[in-house]
Amino acid sequence: MKALVFNGPGQRTWTDVPDPGIIEPGDAIIQVDTVTICGTDLHILGGDVPAVQPGRILGHEAVGTVVAVGPAVTTVQPGDRVLASCITACGRCRYCREQAYGQCRGGGGWILGHLIDGVQAQYARLPFADLSTYKLPDTVSDESAVLLADILPTSYEVGVLNGTVRPGDTVVVVGAGPIGLAAILTARLLSPSHIVAVDKAESRLQAAKQLGADVLIRADEDPLEMVNAITDGLGADVVMEAVGTPGTFETCTRLVRPGGHVANIGVHGKPATLHLEDLWIRNVTISTGLVDTYSTSSLLKMVATGQLDTGQIITHRFPLDDIMAAYDVFANPAETGALKVVLNRS
Amino acid sequence: MKALVFNGPGQRTWTDVPDPGIIEPGDAIIQVDTVTICGTDLHILGGDVPAVQPGRILGHEAVGTVVAVGPAVTTVQPGDRVLASCITACGRCRYCREQAYGQCRGGGGWILGHLIDGVQAQYARLPFADLSTYKLPDTVSDESAVLLADILPTSYEVGVLNGTVRPGDTVVVVGAGPIGLAAILTARLLSPSHIVAVDKAESRLQAAKQLGADVLIRADEDPLEMVNAITDGLGADVVMEAVGTPGTFETCTRLVRPGGHVANIGVHGKPATLHLEDLWIRNVTISTGLVDTYSTSSLLKMVATGQLDTGQIITHRFPLDDIMAAYDVFANPAETGALKVVLNRS
Amino acid sequence: MKALVFNGPGQRTWTDVPDPGIIEPGDAIIQVDTVTICGTDLHILGGDVPAVQPGRILGHEAVGTVVAVGPAVTTVQPGDRVLASCITACGRCRYCREQAYGQCRGGGGWILGHLIDGVQAQYARLPFADLSTYKLPDTVSDESAVLLADILPTSYEVGVLNGTVRPGDTVVVVGAGPIGLAAILTARLLSPSHIVAVDKAESRLQAAKQLGADVLIRADEDPLEMVNAITDGLGADVVMEAVGTPGTFETCTRLVRPGGHVANIGVHGKPATLHLEDLWIRNVTISTGLVDTYSTSSLLKMVATGQLDTGQIITHRFPLDDIMAAYDVFANPAETGALKVVLNRS
Amino acid sequence: MKALVFNGPGQRTWTDVPDPGIIEPGDAIIQVDTVTICGTDLHILGGDVPAVQPGRILGHEAVGTVVAVGPAVTTVQPGDRVLASCITACGRCRYCREQAYGQCRGGGGWILGHLIDGVQAQYARLPFADLSTYKLPDTVSDESAVLLADILPTSYEVGVLNGTVRPGDTVVVVGAGPIGLAAILTARLLSPSHIVAVDKAESRLQAAKQLGADVLIRADEDPLEMVNAITDGLGADVVMEAVGTPGTFETCTRLVRPGGHVANIGVHGKPATLHLEDLWIRNVTISTGLVDTYSTSSLLKMVATGQLDTGQIITHRFPLDDIMAAYDVFANPAETGALKVVLNRS
Repeated sequence: MKALVFNGPGQRTWTDVPDPGIIEPGDAIIQVDTVTICGTDLHILGGDVPAVQPGRILGHEAVGTVVAVGPAVTTVQPGDRVLASCITACGRCRYCREQAYGQCRGGGGWILGHLIDGVQAQYARLPFADLSTYKLPDTVSDESAVLLADILPTSYEVGVLNGTVRPGDTVVVVGAGPIGLAAILTARLLSPSHIVAVDKAESRLQAAKQLGADVLIRADEDPLEMVNAITDGLGADVVMEAVGTPGTFETCTRLVRPGGHVANIGVHGKPATLHLEDLWIRNVTISTGLVDTYSTSSLLKMVATGQLDTGQIITHRFPLDDIMAAYDVFANPAETGALKVVLNRS
Repeated sequence: MKALVFNGPGQRTWTDVPDPGIIEPGDAIIQVDTVTICGTDLHILGGDVPAVQPGRILGHEAVGTVVAVGPAVTTVQPGDRVLASCITACGRCRYCREQAYGQCRGGGGWILGHLIDGVQAQYARLPFADLSTYKLPDTVSDESAVLLADILPTSYEVGVLNGTVRPGDTVVVVGAGPIGLAAILTARLLSPSHIVAVDKAESRLQAAKQLGADVLIRADEDPLEMVNAITDGLGADVVMEAVGTPGTFETCTRLVRPGGHVANIGVHGKPATLHLEDLWIRNVTISTGLVDTYSTSSLLKMVATGQLDTGQIITHRFPLDDIMAAYDVFANPAETGALKVVLNRS
Repeated sequence: MKALVFNGPGQRTWTDVPDPGIIEPGDAIIQVDTVTICGTDLHILGGDVPAVQPGRILGHEAVGTVVAVGPAVTTVQPGDRVLASCITACGRCRYCREQAYGQCRGGGGWILGHLIDGVQAQYARLPFADLSTYKLPDTVSDESAVLLADILPTSYEVGVLNGTVRPGDTVVVVGAGPIGLAAILTARLLSPSHIVAVDKAESRLQAAKQLGADVLIRADEDPLEMVNAITDGLGADVVMEAVGTPGTFETCTRLVRPGGHVANIGVHGKPATLHLEDLWIRNVTISTGLVDTYSTSSLLKMVATGQLDTGQIITHRFPLDDIMAAYDVFANPAETGALKVVLNRS
Repeated sequence: MKALVFNGPGQRTWTDVPDPGIIEPGDAIIQVDTVTICGTDLHILGGDVPAVQPGRILGHEAVGTVVAVGPAVTTVQPGDRVLASCITACGRCRYCREQAYGQCRGGGGWILGHLIDGVQAQYARLPFADLSTYKLPDTVSDESAVLLADILPTSYEVGVLNGTVRPGDTVVVVGAGPIGLAAILTARLLSPSHIVAVDKAESRLQAAKQLGADVLIRADEDPLEMVNAITDGLGADVVMEAVGTPGTFETCTRLVRPGGHVANIGVHGKPATLHLEDLWIRNVTISTGLVDTYSTSSLLKMVATGQLDTGQIITHRFPLDDIMAAYDVFANPAETGALKVVLNRS
């Protein structure tokens, strides 16, 4: 089959590789029907994730059709259309028992396209399929579903729920890239009174507006002054970091009100400065997190009922064979305007 | 009357000042019967709290007898023996309504011995007395009660409850000074399986042991290795910072398990480094806080029933007139072994 | 002034009474601008609330203009337009400190039009005005605000929040009278996937549909079968009782799924049968409650931002002088179609 | 092998039956080393649980040694000493994902000694062994461990945690049989200020005292008056029903304070009267529940560290071969003083 293979920093090819097969009794094999590219894939190609070895097939977000299952699989069977979640769950360890699947210590966690071969390929092996795949109802399209593999549960769990967004809150999202936009979309489920988007790019702020942000701030403006203006000088109830740089994280800790929450969603490569000399007295809660995907079933139901319209986050579509070009588009959003790029089996 | 007056950095005197009187309708005046000195008072004397003006009477922890009340006071009356809490609560603002009294925006918060005259004096004025004082039952001694003014609710709310200690947890307390010891004492209310104390001073570790710590670590040992040894390599469920330095805070973030809590209790004067490059993926929650004193009534009940024996934290006793000497003892714990120093009206 | 006076069961008159004046230092006097009638007022007239003495002025939901305040009042002043909440809060007792104002033990709770004179009058005295009135922004109309006195916080706190409605849930509201409709309106803030309304009257089901219910069930149909049909046979996540009869309560306990919540909002005059022989094994949580009004500020903000459109619940408007006729209309909803009836000072 | 077989109401024999074998890939077979009898077993013999068919081997609480495992089992292996939990968990269904294993819809839940053969036998088959058994550390004896199969997690989850016991609370446990005593023992983990035990039998009240109750009430005394006396007339924060009769449940709803919790632990065969005419206004929360066993690992750790001394609940010990006599003793506690009766393989 064909697959997108990482050959070391900066090196990727769409090339022939052996088909995957069942290895463990809990495995499923899927034919990949729809797949997308994550910002994390670019980090891997940038050499930032040394655990990824050359020769690895990338990708951790897909919708596919089951073609084979191991003898221990009970919840899906060949022919089923399923979501392949970015997180694999052994279902037996302490963390899986608490639905902290992202922290699985029994062989799961984020392994697809990282520690084992991923889903940017014509076929893929999914370990622990019972807890790591989700059968899709006919009413949910592949494109809507594929956003449930990572970006939607990540923004919802790590941003919205960890941040404890509540009706009437003022919520700030720093960074209006795909994950920040998904945070805006899912924050609306809890009816905040204001959603403030902060970004450098005017085009992303406009996308934020379409998804539900009502206050837009260019990063070169003064976010603190503007947030204070709509909160009687208090600061925001919930601030989400959706960029992954020290500076944006520090901005978040300045924008939050006493008693408020800072929810970090961004992937960070460097330490940030935590201004404890100001914060120690302010009753602030800061949370971090890899997605656990405990909300996937619930989000899937909300996509099925039309409560979540994920379409606006997808800007480009390609046949799977054109994945090399799709990476080029996705890697240059300033020029291409790309948010999420989706690939479909032709 | 006599009072302990701050005269600028490094300068304090026990001197004659005018008696306080009722100013606002919610005020109470108390005769101070028992008072203590807080580490924060030393910070003020060190010049670290510039909001404190020369001429200010220090002190924010006392037990006294009410001698006068303003016309709006309804819950205490002259003759009542009361606890004077370190936090004053207007009771009307948004934060007071949510029991976040420490963040009061209606004229309260931490004001005693800070923005208005404090309680290290023969008499003191207590604003908003209805919500800021607690009538004491006969069964609770002055000495037991005075620890409820600040140190016990601070360690319990900001450390134990913010840290969400639960039965069976492994809890680490970094810093076994008075506030860390109080954190150990109050953590036991939630029945953790292990309480680990980390400190430089062997004497403080021994005090920690007496109050309930079962694992003692000298700061020059390797806390990470020792915590991993008792947690199957996972890290602690809850880690409390009770020192207030960047290094100890960073240690806390290394000792916590994925999904665990770091509760900052320490008063910090400098920023710390937050290793988001490690933490972003670990589902860690970090909380800060000034005490709100919402737990004071409950702690008072537990002192009355004998569930909390606060006595072991008090090491020295002086007559109120000897407060200058008491400061000297409290400021040199390495030599004197002082934990809490209590002064009684003679 | 004129006031609506209860003269014993079945007896009410709009008659001359003395003007109210300041009695306690925390009192405010308002000129009543807008007022409404509650189902509870009908219960009082029916003789069901024996604590209400003949001679009592009824009413506990109003918007007015402050004309005088006692010396202890600090948050409102003459000229302010305020919401008079159905719940009065002393702000000092244990329950008020926990925002359980409805259970106030310091002289508050539900007292207006019950234990002291109420607001269906040209003027009214409001005790503990600081915590029991809410200054209104110009952008919120009297009519929108008056629904925040009782019906909206009641449905939101006692129904939606006690019931722990979450995004994606299936919510059933049994009873689509005013309080049930308000529960539907406020449940939408949490984005349930389905809101099921159950009522005898087709007109009320249509009102439920307009406010956001997507499944309508006539009480003579089989609610259990219909709820099971949309929940894979599981039952609803949250069921709210908004009628106040034994039969409807028992229906609620049959409709809830294992692990779900039954939130009782209805005012009951008789015991119900609790089928513990079925329920003991089903992990069900049942909650009751008088409104505490802790959500009033938050709801007020959401009315101001347009997130809550309360208009559809008001069906009839009268001048205050016509309150006798307004009672007749409100007391006969089957004929008049009345939901909430609002009276304005002419 | 020998097993205790139910032959219809009132009929039990210790008789020869075929040895169990692996049926499903997730099964384990254990040699039963220690087993106990539950009040539920008496209910079955009384004919109250019609789902139990004649021929069924009873028993759902055991410690044993694994002798065989199916091919899908990964967490235990032959030779392991394990706890066999009363609840079996498929680990894949919606309820198991939320740790509500008691409500498992994938073939688990309470099935042992109920829908499939149980553990009062020389050998037993345990389905879904990965999530339904717990490997025991050497430091935990069989006798201590066997109480973790049902009675301790039931009292802790359904009583203490559902009831939200907190430090300083007043807790009432109505019924001081084995489950009520276990509720007293585990409630102490949260440091309530008072634990009140109510029972008819003086001997059980004395056992309650030994396990930590500080107020003892004979059921023929006036519990309401006595609870009010220690709570300033408010009522208890948490009341647990540990009998299973309508009358004791109604008592519980009278003893709880406004804003408090009633946690039902008892197994009920008849409906109770719920006095909504009193309760609707009192902000009361009532919970029911079958044990989910999500706390078993945590309780096991606390037994290992000596925080829970379960020994006092065991009053009688027999060889497994004498199980017929053990039933006689357990079924007549008024005469025998039996609490828990433990049987060991000889």
